[in-house]
Amino acid sequence: MSFDRLISKILDMKNPTVVGLDPKLDYVPVHIKDKAFEKYGQTLKGAAEAVFEFNKGIIDRIYDIVPAIKPQAAYYEMYGWNGVETLTRTIAYAKEKGMFVITDGKRNDIGATMEAYAAAHLGEVKVGDQIIAPFDADALTVNGYLGTDGIDPLLKICKERDRGIFVLVKTSNKSSGELQDRKIDDTPIYAAMGDMCEKWGEDQRGMYGYSSVGAVVGATYPEQLTELRKRLPHTMFLVPGYGAQGGGAKGIAGAFDDKGLGAIVNSSRAVMCAYTKEDNCAPEDYAEAARREVIRMRDDITAYTALK
Amino acid sequence: MSFDRLISKILDMKNPTVVGLDPKLDYVPVHIKDKAFEKYGQTLKGAAEAVFEFNKGIIDRIYDIVPAIKPQAAYYEMYGWNGVETLTRTIAYAKEKGMFVITDGKRNDIGATMEAYAAAHLGEVKVGDQIIAPFDADALTVNGYLGTDGIDPLLKICKERDRGIFVLVKTSNKSSGELQDRKIDDTPIYAAMGDMCEKWGEDQRGMYGYSSVGAVVGATYPEQLTELRKRLPHTMFLVPGYGAQGGGAKGIAGAFDDKGLGAIVNSSRAVMCAYTKEDNCAPEDYAEAARREVIRMRDDITAYTALK
Repeated sequence: MSFDRLISKILDMKNPTVVGLDPKLDYVPVHIKDKAFEKYGQTLKGAAEAVFEFNKGIIDRIYDIVPAIKPQAAYYEMYGWNGVETLTRTIAYAKEKGMFVITDGKRNDIGATMEAYAAAHLGEVKVGDQIIAPFDADALTVNGYLGTDGIDPLLKICKERDRGIFVLVKTSNKSSGELQDRKIDDTPIYAAMGDMCEKWGEDQRGMYGYSSVGAVVGATYPEQLTELRKRLPHTMFLVPGYGAQGGGAKGIAGAFDDKGLGAIVNSSRAVMCAYTKEDNCAPEDYAEAARREVIRMRDDITAYTALK
Repeated sequence: MSFDRLISKILDMKNPTVVGLDPKLDYVPVHIKDKAFEKYGQTLKGAAEAVFEFNKGIIDRIYDIVPAIKPQAAYYEMYGWNGVETLTRTIAYAKEKGMFVITDGKRNDIGATMEAYAAAHLGEVKVGDQIIAPFDADALTVNGYLGTDGIDPLLKICKERDRGIFVLVKTSNKSSGELQDRKIDDTPIYAAMGDMCEKWGEDQRGMYGYSSVGAVVGATYPEQLTELRKRLPHTMFLVPGYGAQGGGAKGIAGAFDDKGLGAIVNSSRAVMCAYTKEDNCAPEDYAEAARREVIRMRDDITAYTALK
């Protein structure tokens, strides 16, 4: 019913970062693909198996130093239901290793349907007499365009099952301003959405002051990051756009509070593809390269924050 | 590269409606559940199998009089990856029967990731030397909060593969106004989002004047429906909220142009659960009851439009 579990892990590891697992098949080293294709053919099942092995390799080499992973649903749906099975297995494996899992699905719908998404990703469903947690992530990204009754079903499950959500506030992409920066009276839409996050989370605050309702705020807009940190004192930030998308550690510093908390910074491609950027790194060593990159990222980001 | 395929079917059948397949297990008659549980146990697989049989029964009794189905992704994800397999099978089965399939996923993300969603739901992916269409729906609902670069990857696939999208403009839920009705200068946000739809679709218009970029506009707001029909002359509307959510046929009339085209009205629960509302309908006859309800709905709605 807050982000305390996540924040505790961040404090333990002195590492406010999360690794995005957005595994296009192109990123997966050939030896892993060959093995999966040999077993299952060049099929969606073969692709999904390759992606799982790739993810597992990375998780095995980062779980002791990185608090969380963020699998992006799109890259699993891309391989059909087999890909979605791999998402399920990836979540379970990372949790087994003690990691906090944020499913990046940006889900949104009206109340009754949002209940189904909430049950799917963070909650439980009833099948006959059985109670089953289908995906069982710790947190989910969501889109608040539909307003409060699209968020309420999530708040209920956050409370009951100690889960969290991150609502899109200011996204990291180039055209995010087309709608998000436009003004309602004098307030940009992204700030109005941020204010709703504070309100949605107001009775679910934890020991570090942050509620179970976080916000997605892109690293590519440092000024807005700093402005929103002040405006939304109880809202934990998930910050995409570091690294591959161009957001630098110095610009991200404004996302953190004076204890170095209040934000978790994501990197996906730079970690998954680290082996392709290093000189002389064999594809077989992709997970070692990923580990080197997460250490570099951690040190880069914490250099500008109070988390010591 | 337009909604011509859908509109042709609407004209052929003189029926501007779509059946939402949002199958909670509670809606599925006991005899179907018992059979599935006997074979697969009270598991997600058992639930998913029951849902598929239920869907198949409805499709078999409506495909000759209803142009389209709209499976809602949330209700499939609710049964984990097994449920997503049922979504895949449902889409394939409905297409085999000649129906137009709109996946209601309200997907949204930044450009690179939206490419993955677009490939997953409307396009194709490459696995080794193979090209595979993972879900292969005809259209997808999306959320435009991220702006143009979250929509562009979809437009490309709409053009290449003759597919369509419906962007959330004014949703049918109670709190949709919290954000969507707020004003940028004098323009409500929903109208600004509608204007973006017109722009996104401007070079993909078909023979009936409508582009491949449609809009979701709820039946529960008749005034805004009428206003938007005038404002967005090339934007096809997907209209949820008829029936169970309270939108009546008279109020929906404003969604249609003077030929009775330009909109398709969805009903989910009222069709799926028709057998529970009729006097003396055996659960075994749920598909017959669904057929009676879609005929009633068609006649109710076309009574107020020019489609004869």
